[in-house]
Amino acid sequence: MGRRIIVIGSGAAGMTAASTAREHNKDAEISVFTEDEYIAYSPCAIPFVLEGKIKDFESIVMHTPEFYKKERNIIVHTKTKVTGVNLEKKVLTTSDGKEYAFDALIVATGGTVFIPPVEGINLPGVFTVRNIADGKAIQKAMKNAKSVVVAGAGVIGLEMAIALKHAGLDVTVIEMFPQVIPRIFDADMAKLVQDYCEQQGIKFVLNTPIGGIKGNGKVEKVVAGDKEYPCDFVIMATGVRANLEIPNMMGLDIGPLGAVRVSPTLQPYKKGRLVKDVYLAGDVIMVESAVVPGPTMSQLGSSAVRQGRVAGINAAGGYAFYPGVLSAFISKIGDLEAGGTGLSKGLAEYYGLNVVEGKATGLTRARYYPGGKKLTVKILVDRDTHKIIGSQIVGGEEITGRVNWLTAVIVKGTTVEEFVAAFENAYCPPTSMVMDVVNLAAEDAAKKL
Amino acid sequence: MGRRIIVIGSGAAGMTAASTAREHNKDAEISVFTEDEYIAYSPCAIPFVLEGKIKDFESIVMHTPEFYKKERNIIVHTKTKVTGVNLEKKVLTTSDGKEYAFDALIVATGGTVFIPPVEGINLPGVFTVRNIADGKAIQKAMKNAKSVVVAGAGVIGLEMAIALKHAGLDVTVIEMFPQVIPRIFDADMAKLVQDYCEQQGIKFVLNTPIGGIKGNGKVEKVVAGDKEYPCDFVIMATGVRANLEIPNMMGLDIGPLGAVRVSPTLQPYKKGRLVKDVYLAGDVIMVESAVVPGPTMSQLGSSAVRQGRVAGINAAGGYAFYPGVLSAFISKIGDLEAGGTGLSKGLAEYYGLNVVEGKATGLTRARYYPGGKKLTVKILVDRDTHKIIGSQIVGGEEITGRVNWLTAVIVKGTTVEEFVAAFENAYCPPTSMVMDVVNLAAEDAAKKL
Repeated sequence: MGRRIIVIGSGAAGMTAASTAREHNKDAEISVFTEDEYIAYSPCAIPFVLEGKIKDFESIVMHTPEFYKKERNIIVHTKTKVTGVNLEKKVLTTSDGKEYAFDALIVATGGTVFIPPVEGINLPGVFTVRNIADGKAIQKAMKNAKSVVVAGAGVIGLEMAIALKHAGLDVTVIEMFPQVIPRIFDADMAKLVQDYCEQQGIKFVLNTPIGGIKGNGKVEKVVAGDKEYPCDFVIMATGVRANLEIPNMMGLDIGPLGAVRVSPTLQPYKKGRLVKDVYLAGDVIMVESAVVPGPTMSQLGSSAVRQGRVAGINAAGGYAFYPGVLSAFISKIGDLEAGGTGLSKGLAEYYGLNVVEGKATGLTRARYYPGGKKLTVKILVDRDTHKIIGSQIVGGEEITGRVNWLTAVIVKGTTVEEFVAAFENAYCPPTSMVMDVVNLAAEDAAKKL
Repeated sequence: MGRRIIVIGSGAAGMTAASTAREHNKDAEISVFTEDEYIAYSPCAIPFVLEGKIKDFESIVMHTPEFYKKERNIIVHTKTKVTGVNLEKKVLTTSDGKEYAFDALIVATGGTVFIPPVEGINLPGVFTVRNIADGKAIQKAMKNAKSVVVAGAGVIGLEMAIALKHAGLDVTVIEMFPQVIPRIFDADMAKLVQDYCEQQGIKFVLNTPIGGIKGNGKVEKVVAGDKEYPCDFVIMATGVRANLEIPNMMGLDIGPLGAVRVSPTLQPYKKGRLVKDVYLAGDVIMVESAVVPGPTMSQLGSSAVRQGRVAGINAAGGYAFYPGVLSAFISKIGDLEAGGTGLSKGLAEYYGLNVVEGKATGLTRARYYPGGKKLTVKILVDRDTHKIIGSQIVGGEEITGRVNWLTAVIVKGTTVEEFVAAFENAYCPPTSMVMDVVNLAAEDAAKKL
């Protein structure tokens, strides 16, 4: 009999863990338990289906349970709730009373949207954006709606706001922080994104938490500050929290950021002691920052996949570790792309760093080559070490590669002087300026040191 | 009186050197001598003007001599040939017999196209692609022409071939090496580019040097191997050699690659001794590779700008050094982008390295997101050190950022295992796959070690 590996959760982390375990262990018995009906899709795609950029929800599903059975010999139990985990006996119980023994367990239960405890939050017409069922419900609600309030101006909130605006709705975004994309973007870069959204006709109410939702049997208006915002439905994009139901059931230690504390091998702790044969991955865990010593959350699809691989290798009997993260991200908000990596100024100062900012604006192509889009790059440098610690980029195209470029630069602890002297950029008039805006931003920072 | 700085050459290296010297020295007397009429433009743009992507040659000129005079207090002597340089007296002589004294001299005389010494090479209708005068002459020749031979299948040859094909000409590319983009691209990646060009209707004759050009008073056909190729004109894209007229006049030491040998401060040598107060930049110099100990040529606009900055700072009395290069490049060939950085397999093996290749093909967006373009990434790893030493990328969009990303990875001496474990990619369905093709290529290489 092969090693019995059980995965709880069928998101990017869970399904990657299962597939990776198979790659590393041909004989293992691998099974996945999930409450969801659809598996193996990217929730990041939901706003783009609603915007009409992607045809339908079916097309974002990469693989079916049948595919996993046939191609990878992985059994997926959909619509199945795990009700108990006995770590001593190594047995998992499901809601139908069945028991499943395991040699290794991977917990990838993901996250849930943080819902502020305000009046009316359970009224029909209040939606989150986590899974395909949510997406389909919003699609239905859009049909007869004229106006919507989006609570939360993070990247998911903004992607949803653009999708709903482009679908013809009147859209108001309400955010408790004084800027869009709070925490991970600085105010000046956030303003570029907000300006673009306002040009698209989206209204913003910043610095104002949601006070409540009112309506007679269904959503009719949102209360924020001293005003009421009439709307047909509400999108709660108020941040993701680790889904701790199963970790709590298992008695795992929870870290200061409200997620499961894990070792670099992604094993949990129980009363401070490392738990054997259990691994976690995805939105449910707290990880280490790659820039400063300290915990962070990295609730991104790309991080879930990387963590899933580590958990899968280790559960299969191999050895892998998960290093510190920068949480490199990219968001497409209408025709604008906004991405970042490493620390924002606010986060860096929270960690006690003395930050120097470099900034440059240019184009994505040579000035005279038609079609070039505006590009603004900000680079943050630690004044003590001169190392680049973060970057934020906003522009019309080709932002992703630049974010990855700077992620590599930060991971390797590069000083801004070294970047200016030794880091080339490829040049061709149709694809870049002769000195890329990234290089110009670094030069600007270097001059201020 | 301020420091007298003279620059010979008005290309990217020369004009950057002059402008950088001004930034670092407000009082200097700075002048530029050039045989050209137009200054401050990118020769890389010429194929795109001929293709009709850029409106006209005037629009690629970034600045006029008047701009430099007014905005930067730099005097540019156009259409002026330098006939003598006296290094002892620090005096430069021009063809009109005038003398100009200098405290620091920057030589940025660029390169010229290598013209094979074959019959008929001086016939009317044989063009090179180095400056705007060349471009205008080709534009004129295209008007009544039906067919053209492009000699040389490097990136300039291919960009020209596409431009001429898209203008309606019958195009044959003749290349002495058995592949397109020889030396800097491996055969498998070169094949992708050749296939695309052939789909566009371009014909290739590989592994065949040009034997001669025939015609009665003008080009009528090109001889290559045992065949003749009738054509109305010929583009010689047969590689760039350092323009050594002035360095030779100055008695500077020439390196083994046929270009001026320079120190990291970009100073030349004379009989093995460093020359004071003279700096060189651009296509005229030989530089050091950043990957292996050894000399290389980096005749790129982006390298010229970086070298120009170093020369300008040093000539102005500052201190800067030019580090080793990877020669990161990007070329847009019709709708295809082809870029690379570091060593090709052939070059790596020439340097005695044992190379492991990783390769992956995917898309520039999530599989289900409309408009994603095919993307092929190759990553080369040194089997002894496991360090990434080179990469080649071909695809329909967003190649430049990926080339810069891998350039950073190589500059910092990253092992492929470290890249796989710790280098994140930003993910969003409209701009990338959840694991970028770059990451997948690195994984493929890591598996083979």
